Amino acid sequence: MFLFQCDYNEGAHPKIMERLVETNMEQTVGYGEDAYCQRAADKIREACGREDLAVHFLVGGTQTNMTVIDAALRSHQGVLCAVTGHINVHETGAVESCGHKVLGLPSEDGKITAAQVERAYLEHKHNDSFEHMVQPKLVYISNPTELGTIYSKAELRELYTVCQKYDLYLFMDGARLGYGLAAPDNDLTLSDIAGFTDVFYIGGTKVGALFGEAVVISSDALKEDFRYLIKQKGGMLAKGRLLGLQFDALFTDKLYFEISAHAVDLAERLRGAFREKGYEFVAPNHTNQIFVVMPDRHLARLKENFGFCYDHQVDDTNSVVRFCTSWATKEEGVEALIQAVEEL
Amino acid sequence: MFLFQCDYNEGAHPKIMERLVETNMEQTVGYGEDAYCQRAADKIREACGREDLAVHFLVGGTQTNMTVIDAALRSHQGVLCAVTGHINVHETGAVESCGHKVLGLPSEDGKITAAQVERAYLEHKHNDSFEHMVQPKLVYISNPTELGTIYSKAELRELYTVCQKYDLYLFMDGARLGYGLAAPDNDLTLSDIAGFTDVFYIGGTKVGALFGEAVVISSDALKEDFRYLIKQKGGMLAKGRLLGLQFDALFTDKLYFEISAHAVDLAERLRGAFREKGYEFVAPNHTNQIFVVMPDRHLARLKENFGFCYDHQVDDTNSVVRFCTSWATKEEGVEALIQAVEEL
Amino acid sequence: MFLFQCDYNEGAHPKIMERLVETNMEQTVGYGEDAYCQRAADKIREACGREDLAVHFLVGGTQTNMTVIDAALRSHQGVLCAVTGHINVHETGAVESCGHKVLGLPSEDGKITAAQVERAYLEHKHNDSFEHMVQPKLVYISNPTELGTIYSKAELRELYTVCQKYDLYLFMDGARLGYGLAAPDNDLTLSDIAGFTDVFYIGGTKVGALFGEAVVISSDALKEDFRYLIKQKGGMLAKGRLLGLQFDALFTDKLYFEISAHAVDLAERLRGAFREKGYEFVAPNHTNQIFVVMPDRHLARLKENFGFCYDHQVDDTNSVVRFCTSWATKEEGVEALIQAVEEL
Amino acid sequence: MFLFQCDYNEGAHPKIMERLVETNMEQTVGYGEDAYCQRAADKIREACGREDLAVHFLVGGTQTNMTVIDAALRSHQGVLCAVTGHINVHETGAVESCGHKVLGLPSEDGKITAAQVERAYLEHKHNDSFEHMVQPKLVYISNPTELGTIYSKAELRELYTVCQKYDLYLFMDGARLGYGLAAPDNDLTLSDIAGFTDVFYIGGTKVGALFGEAVVISSDALKEDFRYLIKQKGGMLAKGRLLGLQFDALFTDKLYFEISAHAVDLAERLRGAFREKGYEFVAPNHTNQIFVVMPDRHLARLKENFGFCYDHQVDDTNSVVRFCTSWATKEEGVEALIQAVEEL
Repeated sequence: MFLFQCDYNEGAHPKIMERLVETNMEQTVGYGEDAYCQRAADKIREACGREDLAVHFLVGGTQTNMTVIDAALRSHQGVLCAVTGHINVHETGAVESCGHKVLGLPSEDGKITAAQVERAYLEHKHNDSFEHMVQPKLVYISNPTELGTIYSKAELRELYTVCQKYDLYLFMDGARLGYGLAAPDNDLTLSDIAGFTDVFYIGGTKVGALFGEAVVISSDALKEDFRYLIKQKGGMLAKGRLLGLQFDALFTDKLYFEISAHAVDLAERLRGAFREKGYEFVAPNHTNQIFVVMPDRHLARLKENFGFCYDHQVDDTNSVVRFCTSWATKEEGVEALIQAVEEL
Repeated sequence: MFLFQCDYNEGAHPKIMERLVETNMEQTVGYGEDAYCQRAADKIREACGREDLAVHFLVGGTQTNMTVIDAALRSHQGVLCAVTGHINVHETGAVESCGHKVLGLPSEDGKITAAQVERAYLEHKHNDSFEHMVQPKLVYISNPTELGTIYSKAELRELYTVCQKYDLYLFMDGARLGYGLAAPDNDLTLSDIAGFTDVFYIGGTKVGALFGEAVVISSDALKEDFRYLIKQKGGMLAKGRLLGLQFDALFTDKLYFEISAHAVDLAERLRGAFREKGYEFVAPNHTNQIFVVMPDRHLARLKENFGFCYDHQVDDTNSVVRFCTSWATKEEGVEALIQAVEEL
Repeated sequence: MFLFQCDYNEGAHPKIMERLVETNMEQTVGYGEDAYCQRAADKIREACGREDLAVHFLVGGTQTNMTVIDAALRSHQGVLCAVTGHINVHETGAVESCGHKVLGLPSEDGKITAAQVERAYLEHKHNDSFEHMVQPKLVYISNPTELGTIYSKAELRELYTVCQKYDLYLFMDGARLGYGLAAPDNDLTLSDIAGFTDVFYIGGTKVGALFGEAVVISSDALKEDFRYLIKQKGGMLAKGRLLGLQFDALFTDKLYFEISAHAVDLAERLRGAFREKGYEFVAPNHTNQIFVVMPDRHLARLKENFGFCYDHQVDDTNSVVRFCTSWATKEEGVEALIQAVEEL
Repeated sequence: MFLFQCDYNEGAHPKIMERLVETNMEQTVGYGEDAYCQRAADKIREACGREDLAVHFLVGGTQTNMTVIDAALRSHQGVLCAVTGHINVHETGAVESCGHKVLGLPSEDGKITAAQVERAYLEHKHNDSFEHMVQPKLVYISNPTELGTIYSKAELRELYTVCQKYDLYLFMDGARLGYGLAAPDNDLTLSDIAGFTDVFYIGGTKVGALFGEAVVISSDALKEDFRYLIKQKGGMLAKGRLLGLQFDALFTDKLYFEISAHAVDLAERLRGAFREKGYEFVAPNHTNQIFVVMPDRHLARLKENFGFCYDHQVDDTNSVVRFCTSWATKEEGVEALIQAVEEL
C-alpha cells in the first residue's frame, strides 16, 4: 500500500532526525530564543537576500495563518482571498475566531488577480454604506494554492503593487512553498517573494520537517510585537529550538530545494501517466498536487493498493481526486502507481 | 423634497411620542425589568398566541443579530444565510467579531430554501474534513428579506422542519416584519412564526418606534441566560422602559399592523406607477421596498425632488434603485412621486 | 415612594422631550450623519474649546466602553484600570468579549494614580516573560468613579503625562461626567479633559438624556475608522438624530451643567443629613452618589418609603448602601428623605 | 554550566527519540487519527482505569488551556482560578482572546479552595446585578501549581463536589502532572483525577516529551465536537502520530512515572541543601520546582556556573529564585549545585 493522499504521511527528512537526536540532551533556553533558531533565521534571511527581515518559527499552518492575520488587522478589517483559500475553507473558522471576516473572491484555479483585489477594494471604498461593511485590509494568497497552481513573478508583482497602492497587506501562505519554487514553470525566488509581500511563510510541515512554519516579515508594522501574538495564539513552542534545528537543516546545502524538486519530479512523472491515459486535470499545474478527473470504476481498482484523496463527485461515473507526492515519496511507489494506471 | 431612501427617516409614531411624554417623569427600575416592559412582553406573547415565549427588548438590529447568534453558537459553529443576508453584508462583520463564520448560500431574491439548508448541512456532515470546517448550527433568514421578498407559510415550515431534523436553530430577522405581515400575498401570522422558528424579532426601528427590536424566543436552550448576552453586547438599555413603552403602544389596538399596512398600501400604489411605465422590478415583492430598474436620465430628474437609494449600475444607462415607504410616509409624497414618474 | 437607587429612574429632561416631539416627523438621513448630530458635535467641540476633536454619539455606556477600547487595542494588548472599574465588574465581560484582558489595579476609592500606571507599565516592560503577558496599552479611568470620587486637574495631568511618556492611551469614562464637573471640589473643565486624555465621553443617559453618550476623541490614531467600530459593536443608531437632538439640547444654554449642579446640590444636602446623624461615608465625595454605612435596622425603616441600593454588608448589623440624586430628583423627595433620616 | 531555570531545556527522553526515528518513514494518516494516537489514548485510559474517557493530543500548554476553556464556555461565562494561575498571568491573554474573562481568586500558594469557589459562585448568583457580571462556569486549577504545590485527594474531592453542586466544570492543568504524582506527599492517582475533574491534561512538554499534552475528558458535554476546537485553535498537528508515539512511549512500562520520580528525587536533594543553609522556601512543596529566598550576593556567585530563574526581589539584599529539576536533570549537575550551595 502506497499513500498519496497528502504530503504529511511520514516523519521528517533523515538529516533532520539526525540533528534532533544529536542535540537531544543539550540544554538551551526556550521559546525560540536559542542559538539554533538564531542560526536558522540567519540562513533564511540569507536565502532571501535581505538582512532586515524578521523570521519567526511557528508549529503549524492554521496557527500561522491566524497569528499573522490577527497581528495585521484591526477589528473592523477583513481578509481578501480566493473562495478556495485554506483560511476560508479548512481552518474551522480560525480567522473568524479572531474576529475577522474572510472576504472570498471567486476563483477557478485557486488564484486571485490584482484586478480582483483592486475592484474589491474600490467597491468597498466607494460604497455608500462602506462603514457598514468589513474593510478589506489584508490580501491572503497561497503559493502553491490549494489546487497546486502557482503565481508568476509578474502576477505577484502586480498584486503587490495594488496592495501598496491601497495600503493593503499582502500575505503569502507558503505551506507548500518548496513545491512551488521547484515547479518547472516557476520564475519566483525567495528573494522575489520577500520583496513582493509584506509577510509570507516557508512551510516545513509538508516539506521535510516533522512540523514547523517559518514566518518571514518585511513590513515594519507587522514586525512589532509579533512574538506576543505567537504566544497568545498558542504557537510559541517551549522547546523552540526544535523548530530552529529543523529549519537550520532544511536551509543547509539547499536541502529544502532539493527535496522539493524530488517531489515535483515524481509528480511530473505521475502526471505524464494520467495524461497518457487521457484523464483531464483540474487546475493543471506542475507542483506536487495532481487533481485529476477519473472514472469511479478506475478509482475503485486503484484504491486497493494506493491511497489518494477524494475531492468531489463530478457526475454519475466520475470524480475528482487528488494525488500528492512529497519529499518522502519513493520512486517505487510512483512506479507502481504508474503501472497500475497504465493497466486501468 | 420627499425622502424615500429608507424606512427610518422620521421619529416615532405620534402615539408612541405621547406615551413617552406622559410617562417621562415616572420613576421605574432600569434594564428592562419595569412594568412597561412586562406589559409589552405580555402583549407580544398574546399576539403570538403562546405564553411560553421569552420576550426581550433590544435597541437595534445589528446588536440584536449578534446577540442572538452569539447566544446560540459554540466557537466552532457558524451561521447559514443568504449571501445577501444583512449579517453577511451590512453589519461590519459583527457576527465575525463574536467569533463566528457566516456561511453564505447563493440567493437571487434574498431567500434561501429548505433544500439549500439541507444540502449545506449534509455536505458538511459527510465531508472527510468536516472537523476542519465550520459546523453549520444556525440558519438566519430575514423576513421580509433585504430585497423585500417574503417567505410563505409552506416555505417557513419546510425550513423549520429541516432545522429540527438536523438540530439547527432557525432565526428570523424581522427588522421589517410588520411590512411582511401586511403584504397582500403574505399567509404567515405571528403565531406561525413563533411556531416555525426558534427565535425571531419584531422590528420597531423601521416600523413606528424611535428604536427597538423585540426578540421572541421559543427555544428553551436559547432562553437560558439571554439577558447576560444582551448586557455583554451593549444592548441592555439603562432606561429599558423606553423600549417597553414603545412596544406596548405598538401592540395596543393593533397599531403595529395598521401602520405597516399603511406603508404597504402606499408601496403598492407606487409599484403600480412604475409598472405602468414599463420599468422592471428586481426581486418583485409586495412589501414596503421597491427595487426597480430605471434609466439614469430618469433618475437624474427624480432626484431633484425625491430621495431614493442607489443600489447598483445595471449597464451604461440603467440602474437599480430602491424606494421605501414606511409607517410615516405621507400620501401627498406618494402622489407627488407617482405624478413625477408618469411625467418621465 | 421616592427612588434614589440610581440616576436613570426617569425619562429625559423636558427640554429634550420637547425637541424630540417638535422634530418628530422631520425627515433626516440616518446613522448620525444628519444636521442635528453635526450641530451637537459642534457645540461639544466649542464647549471643549477645540476644533480638532472628533465627536461621535453612541447609545449606552457598556457599548461605548467596548467600542473605544476595541478601537484602541491590538489583540495582545490590555486595559489598565481600577479593580472597581465598571469595565472590570459590571459589563458582563464586554471588553473580554472583544478579546482584551482588563488588568485591575488596586484601589480603595475607585481612582488610580499615575504612579500605579507607571509601575504597572514598567513591571511589564522589564519582566523577563513580558511577551507571555498582556501588554498594557490603554488606561481606563472613570470620572466620577464608580464610587463617586473625582480626579483633580493635577491628578489627571499626571496620569496623562505618564501615558504620553509610555505611549499609552488615556480614556475617561464620563458616564456621570456632569456630576463630577458640578462637584464643589472639582477643578477640571471639559477643555482640560480634552487636553489630558486621548478620548473621553460625556454621559447623557445618567445626565438628562433618554440615552446617549458623546465620545470625544483627540488622538488622531483613535479617530481613524471609528465609525466602522461603532457599527460593528451595535452602537450606530439608525435614527441617529435622536442622539444629536438630545446633546444639542443638553449643550444649549449650559443645560448639561445646570441640571448636573441641581443633582449635586441635592446630594450635598442629603450628605449633610447623614453626617449630622454620625453615619460614615465610604469613599467620601461631593458628586451625586453617596455611599454610606448605616445600621440595617435604620435601612429597614427607610426602605418603606425610599428606594436605595444595597452595596454590601459590613458586619452583622451594618451595611453600605448607595443613594443617588440626579437631574430629575425633586426637592420634595430629598426633604422627605432628610426628615426620615433625622427621625431614625 | 548546568541549567536549572526550567523543565524544558532539553529534547526528549531517549526512548521517545528512538521511537520517532524507528517509525520515521512509516506512512500514516494525519491529524491524530492514526494507530499510534489510538494506542496512546488506550494506554492513558487504562492508566486512568476508565474506558469512557475521551483522550486528545495537543501540542502545547497555552493552546490546550484555551482550547479546553473555549470548548466549555458560552460567551458570558468566565473562569475562576488562582490569581497566580498560568492562564491569568503567562499566556498573553489567550483566554481573553477567546472572549472569556479570567476571574482571579486570591492565593498565597498557587492553590484555591472549595470554599473560595463556593463563595465566588454564590456571590455572583446572589448579586443584584448578576446579569451585569461574568458568570463563573469553569474552575481552573493547576497541579502542581505554578508554585510547585499540589492538591491532596481530599482537597480535589471537595473542589469537585462544589463544582458538581453548582454545575461548574472543573479543569486541571497538568503541565507538570508527573512531578505532582511523584511527590512524596501526594495521595492522588490518575484515576482519582479522572474521577474528580471534568477534564484534565497530562503534560508531556515538561515531562519527557519533545512537546505534547494529553487532554483527558470525562464530561460528556465537553467531549462533543472537541476536535473542531482543537483544529480552530491551531492545535491539530498534521503529523499527529508524533504525539501518539510520544505518549505511547511515556505510558509504556510506567516511563512517565519513573522519569518524574527521578526529577522529584533530585529536587528533594537540592531542597535539603538549601534547607541546611537556612534559606527559606516560598510555597514549600515536594515537586520539581523550588522557590527559595536567597541573598543576592549568593545568587551572583551561583550564576557563574548555574542557570536559575529570578522571580522577584524581596528586599534590598534578597530575592526569590526558582530552581527546577526535570526528567533530564543529571545527578552530576545536582551534586555540583549542592556543593556550590554548601560553599556559599
